[in-house]
Amino acid sequence: MKFLRLGELGQERPVLLDGGTYLDLSAITADIDGGFLAGGGVDRARAALDAGELPVLPDAAELRIGAPIARPSAVVCVGMNYAAHAAESGSAPPEVPIIFLKTPNTVVGPNDVARIPRGSTKTDWEVELGVVIGQHTSYLDSPADSLAHIAGFVVANDLSEREWQLEISGGQWSKGKSAPGFSPVGPWLVTPDEVDHTNLRLRSFVNGEPRQDSSTADLIFSVEQIVYQLSQYLAFEPGDLILTGTPQGVALSGRFPYLKAGDVIDIEIEGLGNQRQGFIDA
Amino acid sequence: MKFLRLGELGQERPVLLDGGTYLDLSAITADIDGGFLAGGGVDRARAALDAGELPVLPDAAELRIGAPIARPSAVVCVGMNYAAHAAESGSAPPEVPIIFLKTPNTVVGPNDVARIPRGSTKTDWEVELGVVIGQHTSYLDSPADSLAHIAGFVVANDLSEREWQLEISGGQWSKGKSAPGFSPVGPWLVTPDEVDHTNLRLRSFVNGEPRQDSSTADLIFSVEQIVYQLSQYLAFEPGDLILTGTPQGVALSGRFPYLKAGDVIDIEIEGLGNQRQGFIDA
Repeated sequence: MKFLRLGELGQERPVLLDGGTYLDLSAITADIDGGFLAGGGVDRARAALDAGELPVLPDAAELRIGAPIARPSAVVCVGMNYAAHAAESGSAPPEVPIIFLKTPNTVVGPNDVARIPRGSTKTDWEVELGVVIGQHTSYLDSPADSLAHIAGFVVANDLSEREWQLEISGGQWSKGKSAPGFSPVGPWLVTPDEVDHTNLRLRSFVNGEPRQDSSTADLIFSVEQIVYQLSQYLAFEPGDLILTGTPQGVALSGRFPYLKAGDVIDIEIEGLGNQRQGFIDA
Repeated sequence: MKFLRLGELGQERPVLLDGGTYLDLSAITADIDGGFLAGGGVDRARAALDAGELPVLPDAAELRIGAPIARPSAVVCVGMNYAAHAAESGSAPPEVPIIFLKTPNTVVGPNDVARIPRGSTKTDWEVELGVVIGQHTSYLDSPADSLAHIAGFVVANDLSEREWQLEISGGQWSKGKSAPGFSPVGPWLVTPDEVDHTNLRLRSFVNGEPRQDSSTADLIFSVEQIVYQLSQYLAFEPGDLILTGTPQGVALSGRFPYLKAGDVIDIEIEGLGNQRQGFIDA
């Protein structure tokens, strides 16, 4: 199933996308959030769908697409998780998952206007497979337990300001990862049964020109390893978002210019939908 | 004024501590959270206090003390913000604020049982002045604007696992900062008019032996500088928590053993109250 949230910021309503039809989930839940995911909401939605009880949402195509999950309690990111991106960043492939956090208020809709932060000269893009946690997750026994704790997958753009991340940060990346609107997510939350998350093509384009083009098959640490290993160090809450890392082809490589007002980013992951952000100055 | 939250985890009620008397704020607000702080709650509480409208909370002394704010949207930490602690950690004093994040679900009550994470051999303490944000804060014009965006101050213990933070992290500290219960906060949220936050003695003890003993006068980056500077890189939400850094005297220095089950930590900040955590194995 594909879940999404449609409507103005802060007033999104929960929606199920069935084929090309948008169905209103408001009778099932007030929102697509941790409570919905952990409280059997997905099963209730499926039952209502199968029973034909969900009304069509009129004018859905005219509504703003929000992030497909309400604000998570944490956005946990895995760095340098594609070998070629580690190389273009000047780093060796990591031997353990490297993690950092973004502030959760960076999460916005997939097509919202994006802002170059004030004072930024090195705003960069990162297409990433996002994992949405479905239930409280702590001290998993093995990677095989991970999938049962995952509600679904999303497209995410892990926007980054490289000077702030790397040059004036004392080495701690979060300073360049948390500017307002720096985590476009969506359009859909896709349940694990609908996609083979181990082999999804992911791509980004700037002003129509190709930048990143890789596959989640190239992840150094798999989704299952990430959730298992990180659960030893922290506890995930339902609705939390994990960004699994970005492949090569970002501006940090030196091969492409950084983003500026007027630029347009397109990113997409096979089976998970696509995003488009136009940039303005903050 | 001193705000606190009393009751079992997840069922805390809002309380005002007036002298030695605990007054029930339930008629004023459902919780001490971002909405309360940004929505004029402090003024409403003060008016109700002055009018003698707040009922005494019976048996308050028998209730668990929760964190004095509901779960924040972000916990933003400033690293190496006391020169002597930077030195004991093997680092030069920073020229810019170094920030990292903890997951917000690490926030617990000041006296809750604390847990040595599974597999940890280097669990460490850090007494810190905590700043609670009172309203949306982004792109402040000057440090002079910071105080108006601060709801109050709290005691915090920024618990840390040093192997995870420094040795198996690829250099990103959050991995050793986010274990369950790693941010005891409280007992009180103290409004800025009640304390001189620029000169507060802060101390920690392990099993009654002194460890840290310093003053917020020794902060490299002041509270006002921190809020102003960080507001250029990220947006704070009402109720967010900033941990301003820890002074020298932690186990990482090599002068003291790391924590183990059975240990008891006491920490206190002048005017902001004290905490006590007994440790068990997770």
